[in-house]
Amino acid sequence: MSGNIKQAAAAARRASQLLATTPEAVRDEALAAIAAGLEAARERIETANAEDLQAAAQMVADGELARPLVKRLNIAGGKFAAIVEMVGAVASQPDPLGVTQAATELAESLELYRVSVPIGVLGVIFESRPDALVQIAALCLKSGNAVLLKGGKEALRTNQVLAEVIAGAAAGVSGIPEGWLYLLESRDDVRAMLDEDESIDLIIPRGGNEFVRYIMENTRIPVMGHADGVCHVYVDSHADLDKAVRVVVDSKTQYVAVCNAAETLLVHADIAERFFAVACEALSARGVEIRGDERTRGMISGNGKVTPATEADWGYEYLDLVLAVKVVDRLDEAVEHINRYGSHHTDAIITEDREAASRFLAAVDSASVTHNASTRFADGFRYGLGAEVGISTNRLHSRGPVGLEGLTIYKFMLMGDGHTVDDFEGGQPQGYTHRPLAKAWESDI
Amino acid sequence: MSGNIKQAAAAARRASQLLATTPEAVRDEALAAIAAGLEAARERIETANAEDLQAAAQMVADGELARPLVKRLNIAGGKFAAIVEMVGAVASQPDPLGVTQAATELAESLELYRVSVPIGVLGVIFESRPDALVQIAALCLKSGNAVLLKGGKEALRTNQVLAEVIAGAAAGVSGIPEGWLYLLESRDDVRAMLDEDESIDLIIPRGGNEFVRYIMENTRIPVMGHADGVCHVYVDSHADLDKAVRVVVDSKTQYVAVCNAAETLLVHADIAERFFAVACEALSARGVEIRGDERTRGMISGNGKVTPATEADWGYEYLDLVLAVKVVDRLDEAVEHINRYGSHHTDAIITEDREAASRFLAAVDSASVTHNASTRFADGFRYGLGAEVGISTNRLHSRGPVGLEGLTIYKFMLMGDGHTVDDFEGGQPQGYTHRPLAKAWESDI
Repeated sequence: MSGNIKQAAAAARRASQLLATTPEAVRDEALAAIAAGLEAARERIETANAEDLQAAAQMVADGELARPLVKRLNIAGGKFAAIVEMVGAVASQPDPLGVTQAATELAESLELYRVSVPIGVLGVIFESRPDALVQIAALCLKSGNAVLLKGGKEALRTNQVLAEVIAGAAAGVSGIPEGWLYLLESRDDVRAMLDEDESIDLIIPRGGNEFVRYIMENTRIPVMGHADGVCHVYVDSHADLDKAVRVVVDSKTQYVAVCNAAETLLVHADIAERFFAVACEALSARGVEIRGDERTRGMISGNGKVTPATEADWGYEYLDLVLAVKVVDRLDEAVEHINRYGSHHTDAIITEDREAASRFLAAVDSASVTHNASTRFADGFRYGLGAEVGISTNRLHSRGPVGLEGLTIYKFMLMGDGHTVDDFEGGQPQGYTHRPLAKAWESDI
Repeated sequence: MSGNIKQAAAAARRASQLLATTPEAVRDEALAAIAAGLEAARERIETANAEDLQAAAQMVADGELARPLVKRLNIAGGKFAAIVEMVGAVASQPDPLGVTQAATELAESLELYRVSVPIGVLGVIFESRPDALVQIAALCLKSGNAVLLKGGKEALRTNQVLAEVIAGAAAGVSGIPEGWLYLLESRDDVRAMLDEDESIDLIIPRGGNEFVRYIMENTRIPVMGHADGVCHVYVDSHADLDKAVRVVVDSKTQYVAVCNAAETLLVHADIAERFFAVACEALSARGVEIRGDERTRGMISGNGKVTPATEADWGYEYLDLVLAVKVVDRLDEAVEHINRYGSHHTDAIITEDREAASRFLAAVDSASVTHNASTRFADGFRYGLGAEVGISTNRLHSRGPVGLEGLTIYKFMLMGDGHTVDDFEGGQPQGYTHRPLAKAWESDI
């Protein structure tokens, strides 16, 4: 079994080296073929999905699966059309490869170009939504990366058909190498994949906290993603109360089970009583339980709905209708709290004081920081990156929502005419010009 | 002891959060103070260096240290002035922080900026040259990163004085936090540092192959750098013979003990005899031993200086006056050999055929690829990046020579006016504009 994964990873490496030189037109043609192939196989895919749904319903009845997962599993109806459309949307994005990021003349006839190239081979482990498989496969193909994929076990039948249809459709396009997409089917497969650091460049785990930590602790391959999503909203002393309530309610309640939902609210003491007077009702109307520190509880007097916050509430990811609330005396105290207890994911300040906003945005050490805007905007589609492969709290390579560009790295290309270092650093050295060039790399093929 | 390192790493994390908001003028003022401080402490530094040199000479006599390391240890005379000058050169580079990399209008009054920020805390382990300490410290301060440094033990006295002078000079500048620079003094310190994945974001090990592998295998912190440097030169059938000889000789002999020196030469069969007729003499005049495959040996007939190459010679890093040579029948065979045996560092093609050059540059999966230019150019100074912290064969974050920009990552800053996701995705949704903005992020502080 693990031998298969080793072979699949090695095949993906070879495929990635060929994909790296595949022109955009060929990659786009393959994406079009995939969209058409999915349409043509709609009945087969929906049949497999219905089988998965039936088995999942039984698992829910047996208490082996949470009900919300079943809903996400369903790709019937409008969902199917949206999946096919998304493949087209990825194809229509600008080519992330071959982009000249820098060009410098080092000396006469010696020109250096820094050009974007694929990372190579990715291992992506995703949750039960089968549409994620299609999205990730499309993003990888567009960016010239080979990919090993593992979805949720409850979606296995759907994923098997999807992967077969996608690989088959792409294989019909001349110039697309075999082996660029491989579906893993079990946890043993995932364990085997984590050992293939010679063939795999990056693991992207999407899913819960514990799962992501398990991956991070069990591989030498770099891991991109996030474990916790502990987002904060800080209501500054110069906040507009209406905006503050709107943003707090949206950040907390628009979709509670996701990483960019707010978990902790920090309120400046000067505005806290006025803010609580309007905010508590709005939050309570949405069914939000408040866990307040002592000062918060004192200010929301006679309100039985506030339970005491303990040290364990700071930095806790509820993923539920619960909000930890703390009163602070200074913006710096809010910043320190966020940098200490947060997960460096997404944090917001609500204020009409532009200087305070700038200080907060500069000092909070997170992938996304927002001013008078909901934390829920931290998402590849909303940020205009097209689709996203995930949200990263890494401090290397990619941070925040990661789209096509985050799946590329660069290569230096140096064009000379017989130039040697000895010409520059030997007996009668000539000098480097290091002049920026206003031109892009041009291939002669 | 390891408790000290834990504390130093935590202090560096706090310092990094403050450094991230330090204006360029303050960082440049600190670099100027460091340059002045080094000048003022010249006598103390040179005394410490003389003690290191004396101890090193004894170690060489006792067979405990290689002689070339002693030469690199010496910072007297012109070397000292060059070190001070380098600090000024780093200060005069453009600010790598606060650069707007992308700006997008998501909707009316909702603007997204992607702005460069420091990585955070770096751990850099470097060889015996004390000038490396000054260079790394300057690069880190300019890019707003805190740093834990460990130099060679034979340079300890010099490094102690340098680190003390640098930290002291920077501390005299208002706005520079304490604890941004910390000198490790022993291997136990390094081992302790490798455990501090909560506080340290990136390890940069500079040094030999085995050492780098040890680091990579003993930490969960991301590691940037390279183990091997197995560079190839491929002489194509359409090579200009004079350029080919010049570039091969320079790539192999200009400085043999470095990662960007060539170790393997691949020659197209159509040109091999003519090329060997001129190249062998030039290489032999430089004392290069050729290890040839069977076809190479057949073509360099009657030349006793060619020893047979075995499988072990492909992909071997000699770091010496030895060159493995193989005759190939096609450009693709050269590419496959390089991608299989190379270290993805720097590889060159020599040809007058521009299409062949483009194919090689696209298909060779290395950080740097050169056309008619020596592999020895792969270096931060020569590439015009200013100083360099190292050369990376990673496929994430930074690849090839790494300068100031490679020490940064970015942060998304979203500026709204009370915007909620529900406005866009709720009952009566408004649309995203996703319009590129031709303006840079402007802070209000």
